Order: sequence, then C-alpha cells, then structure tokens
Amino acid sequence: MKELWSERCRNLTPYTPGEQPRGRKFIKLNTNENPYPPSPLALRAIREAMEDRLPLYPDPECTELRETIAQVLDVKPGNVFVGNGSDEVLSLAFQAFFDPDKPIRFADITYSFYPVFAGFYGLTYEEIPLDENFALPLEPFLKPGGGVVLANPNAPTGREADFCDIRAIVEANPHSVVIVDEAYVDFGARSAVELVDRYPNLLVVQTLSKSRSLAGLRVGYAVGNCDLIDGLNTVKNSFNSYPVDQLAQAGAIGAMRDVDYFRTTCTKIINTRSAVSNRLRDMGFAVCDSSANFIFVTHESVPAKVLLDGLRDRGILVRWWDKPRISNYLRITIGTGEEMKALCAALTEVLSEQRK
Amino acid sequence: MKELWSERCRNLTPYTPGEQPRGRKFIKLNTNENPYPPSPLALRAIREAMEDRLPLYPDPECTELRETIAQVLDVKPGNVFVGNGSDEVLSLAFQAFFDPDKPIRFADITYSFYPVFAGFYGLTYEEIPLDENFALPLEPFLKPGGGVVLANPNAPTGREADFCDIRAIVEANPHSVVIVDEAYVDFGARSAVELVDRYPNLLVVQTLSKSRSLAGLRVGYAVGNCDLIDGLNTVKNSFNSYPVDQLAQAGAIGAMRDVDYFRTTCTKIINTRSAVSNRLRDMGFAVCDSSANFIFVTHESVPAKVLLDGLRDRGILVRWWDKPRISNYLRITIGTGEEMKALCAALTEVLSEQRK
Repeated sequence: MKELWSERCRNLTPYTPGEQPRGRKFIKLNTNENPYPPSPLALRAIREAMEDRLPLYPDPECTELRETIAQVLDVKPGNVFVGNGSDEVLSLAFQAFFDPDKPIRFADITYSFYPVFAGFYGLTYEEIPLDENFALPLEPFLKPGGGVVLANPNAPTGREADFCDIRAIVEANPHSVVIVDEAYVDFGARSAVELVDRYPNLLVVQTLSKSRSLAGLRVGYAVGNCDLIDGLNTVKNSFNSYPVDQLAQAGAIGAMRDVDYFRTTCTKIINTRSAVSNRLRDMGFAVCDSSANFIFVTHESVPAKVLLDGLRDRGILVRWWDKPRISNYLRITIGTGEEMKALCAALTEVLSEQRK
Repeated sequence: MKELWSERCRNLTPYTPGEQPRGRKFIKLNTNENPYPPSPLALRAIREAMEDRLPLYPDPECTELRETIAQVLDVKPGNVFVGNGSDEVLSLAFQAFFDPDKPIRFADITYSFYPVFAGFYGLTYEEIPLDENFALPLEPFLKPGGGVVLANPNAPTGREADFCDIRAIVEANPHSVVIVDEAYVDFGARSAVELVDRYPNLLVVQTLSKSRSLAGLRVGYAVGNCDLIDGLNTVKNSFNSYPVDQLAQAGAIGAMRDVDYFRTTCTKIINTRSAVSNRLRDMGFAVCDSSANFIFVTHESVPAKVLLDGLRDRGILVRWWDKPRISNYLRITIGTGEEMKALCAALTEVLSEQRK
C-alpha cells in the first residue's frame, strides 16, 4: 500500500490533534479555544476585505498586520514575522535556527509539537524534567547548547516560568536561539517581548488563536531581532509560498487594534479561571496554578481517565494524555461561566457515582 | 548577521513572487488572478461561518469541503486532499512521494517552484527541454524514474499537453508518482482526473485560486488513489498543523457548489483570451496557443523588457523573466474585456514610440 511513498514518509508518525467533534453538540473544553467571539472590529475588517480582496493573492509580507502588531507591542515592524498560526511560525523557526548536530533543549512535559518538529527536521534534543510541581528547573538550561524552546505559560500545566529565569536562560545562550512560546501569555503571565530589544538571540512567539478568539483563522507571529526575522523570511520564501490569507490578515488587524475588547475578554477568562479553580479544590482536586486559559487538575481519589469518560458521557470534552507523569491529570479549557457551572455539576455527578 | 541561522537556512535562496503593488492603483495582469469576483454562494458561506466559527479550530480534515469537491469531480472523498493553496499541496506531495536518490523529471520551462521544492527536500531532478514551440517531448518521460511533475496547461506558456501523452507517461511510470499540476486546467484543457480511478500512481493537483476567483483564500487540492491521499495526510499530520482556516473552507465549499457561476466566468475568460490573442497577433505578436487564463507572447521587433517597462509606466503590470529561452516573452493574465482594451491601447502606444 505504501509502495509509492517516499522513504521519509514511510518513517513518519502522525500527530493526533484534540478532537473536533462533528454531529453531537458538546461543551468543548478540550482545545483551549476562547469561549467569546472575536472583536467586532475583526468582523468588520473581514467583511470589508470580502468586498474586493478575495480574487487577489494576499500580501505575502503581511505589511499592514505587522505594522499593527508592532504598534500594539511597542516594537518595530521589522521585528515581527507573521505566519499561519504559531505552529507554522514555530516550524519555520526550528528550520531557521537549529542544526542537527547541536542538541536543543525543552521540558519533558510541554507542548507536544516540539519533539515532532525536531524529529521532522532531523534535530537532536534533550528533554529536561520539570520538578514534581511541574516547575522549570533553571540549571540545565544555563549551559550553552544548540537552542532552547520554552512554553510560557507552559502547556499543558499552565504554569508560568519565573521572568528572571527566562532572562537568565537567554543570557546564558548568546550563541543559540531561545524561543519563548507565549501562546497563552495574555491570560496573566509576563511576556518576554520587552527583552527582545536587548537580546538578539530571543524569539518570542504568540498567537491570535487564544486571547483574540481567532483559532478559526490561523494567525500567529514571532517577535525578535531583525536578523532572526530575516532568517524566518528566508526559510519561508525559499519553499513556502502559503501566505496568510486575505480574510485572516484583515481579521487579525481588526482584532489586534481592539485592545479594550481584548483586555475585557482576557479578564473575564482570568476571573472564571479563579472561580472554577477554587470550586474544584473544594471538590478534592489539586489544581496547578495557571496563567493560561486552561487548568491542569488531578483528583485525590478518582482517576483522570474515569473523569474524562464521565464528562464525555455528559456532553463535555476535556483533554487527557496517556503519558508518563501526567496520565492522572486533565487539562480543562476555561469556557464561559455557564460552561464552567455545567462542568462542575457534571464532575459532582461523576465523583458521587464513584463514591457509591 | 547570520550567526544565529542554521546551516540549512544560510544555504537557501528565497523565491521571488510576482509583485503585489501597494499604493498606486495598477491593472494587475501579472499574477494570473481572476478578474471576476467569487460566486455569491462563496460569499454567503463565508458570512455564515463568521457568525460562530471564528473562535474554533477548523476541521483539520476539511471533511465537508472534501465531500463537496468529490461530488463535483465525481470521485470519492477519500480520493481528495485539501491544503492551503496548491503550492502547499505540491510541497507535501514532493515530500510524500519523491526520494533523494531517484531523480525526478519536469520540463525546463515550467512552474518555477518545482526546482525550489526539489532543492528544499534534497531531491535530484532532470529538466527536460521543451521543443522550440514549447511543446512537451514525450520520449524522455517514458523511461521509468523517480517521479514526474507536469503542469498542464504549462506555465508560463499556457500550452496544453496532449491527453494521450499524459496517459502514456503515467502508464510508463507505474512505480513512481506522476503529478499533474492543473492549476489552469479549467480554462479549456482536459483534466486527468478521469484517469485517477485507473492509475494508482497519478496525482492531480488543482486550485481555487484561478478559476474560482479565490486566490485570496489559499485553497488547493489533490485528487488521487486513496493510498496517495494517505501519504499526503501522513506527511501533513506529522509536522504541519496548519489546517485550511474556517472561512477559507466555507468559501471554498460555496465556490465549488456553484458550478454554473464557475462555467460562466471561465467562458468569459476564454472568450476574452481569444479576442485579445487575435488583436495582439494583428499587432505583430506571436501568441502561444493558450488553454490557461494567461497568454505568453513575444513581439516581432520590440524586446519584451521594453514592453514590460512601457506597460508599467502606463499603469499595467505583466510578468517577465530574465531567463534563458523566455527572456523575450511576456506572460499576460487575461483580465476583463475593459482591462484587455487598456492593455492593447497601451501596447499600441509603446510600439509606436519604438517605431519613431
């Protein structure tokens, strides 16, 4: 069956994304989507772009979007690179900055795409174990090496790394690139963007999928020294001519401009996270301190897999991994207040069933 | 400056896409965009998707879009793979089906991305010279090899390959994949999709950028035996999690469903092409027979570069390459009847200036 596949293709193991259900209506707390709609300015910008821009190829350089992001983040447009979601940006960065003969480092528990990208580009890597509370150990990242990738806040734990630790890691690796993946940073963590001016080896990656409610449009970006941005452009323009589409660029511009709306929805999610975390602790859960739009929880007596299935039976999807160290944890996206009430009610039912 | 770049990145040569002007308003006949808007069904589908799908990740499998394409082309959904423009589909196909140790073959004058993809994936390739009329020679493609890539109609010439020749090439290469890139097929050429059932090594690639007026959305697809489609999915799901976005999927579904609108706009372009080709021949141009939404022309006395600059001065962009064999040709996209009148008027001016 695979007779016509390339050698490379035969050796691949595909990644499994979180379930996107069709048919039955679930409460989706499994893929860290934002429960609120995008800014009205984003919707208006998309409608305007629909009027005349659909038959035309998009601006491959995302000029206006880069200008907008630069303005919001107080950097220069030349410090910004835009891609089709932060996954594409990360993939291009792995290609542009890491070499096969120099191992890169990331945490043992972190975004599962890092080893996938490393494998795809033939890179070697070292997985640094988080401590028993899922905190990032500093020492192993301080020796120079082939590069570092940190998710901050980390996924799937939600834990924020110490800002001074991140700076120390960037300082300790002046001859290799440190990527800080800030997909979830807007929900309460401190961004490393403010360090970009000072450290030419720091690349910060963010996305509009979470805090700007635009997972459906696939827009992410990197912020870094212009030499790093040039590297990303070189890789992209050498083999990848799939620019961010017209409507995605338009929507992203609208969403970035509406800073008030962004702050309001982020604050709502932070408040809901705080309330539901307390509620779950009362129910016997240990809840990791989260600076993200999800929480990572484990129950004192009921196994995570039992809770996962019980929630699914009640129409609620959350995320679970059958992996060492975290197989008794669930990652639960912060939805609306109503959705979190439904979650707590369903968990109460499942727990009481287990106690019978 | 490139101290932090990977070895791979330092060795890359970026591709230069056709100009997308900002600022001054040009008549754009340089990037083969469709001068007509997309189907009203596409616009309606996008508006509906905007209502509730923007915060949600898109269906990574493009299920409904694949079903729609399958229905329109009379194949099965399992025979269809969808990507972010046919460039992404081609790139994934080069990865999935070609090996570095077996040279692939394509024409010496064809879509300039083929050698780029080959270079990026470390593939060797043989460029088969077209004849003096830019026709595809059959013989060199009949010996078995590592794979074949044919653009039909070819770019930038617009020439259609003989259907029987394509079938003969597919038959002569049963142990390697033959990719037929049909980006422009809807403007008068015969598609090889009808052969997919019979030949498990045939992959046909099409796009919604040209004949469906959706270059702004970046949607392309491949049609082939389900084993080939599995190969594309394996590569995609192993390193690339940038699914086609929500609005692009919605718009593509609407556009594919509106077969009447599609036929009407394609016919308009074909008629305009015929009229402008005759007009240009009267003006001393040799015009290659085109089955695409562009024409490839050379003038009996005035160099192509002079015409290019003269047109640009008059607000009209066309495409020219400083490359062997074709440096005295221009590729001109078929616009509206009005735009073609403006083109002919501008060319008349430039030619008469040269005769002074």
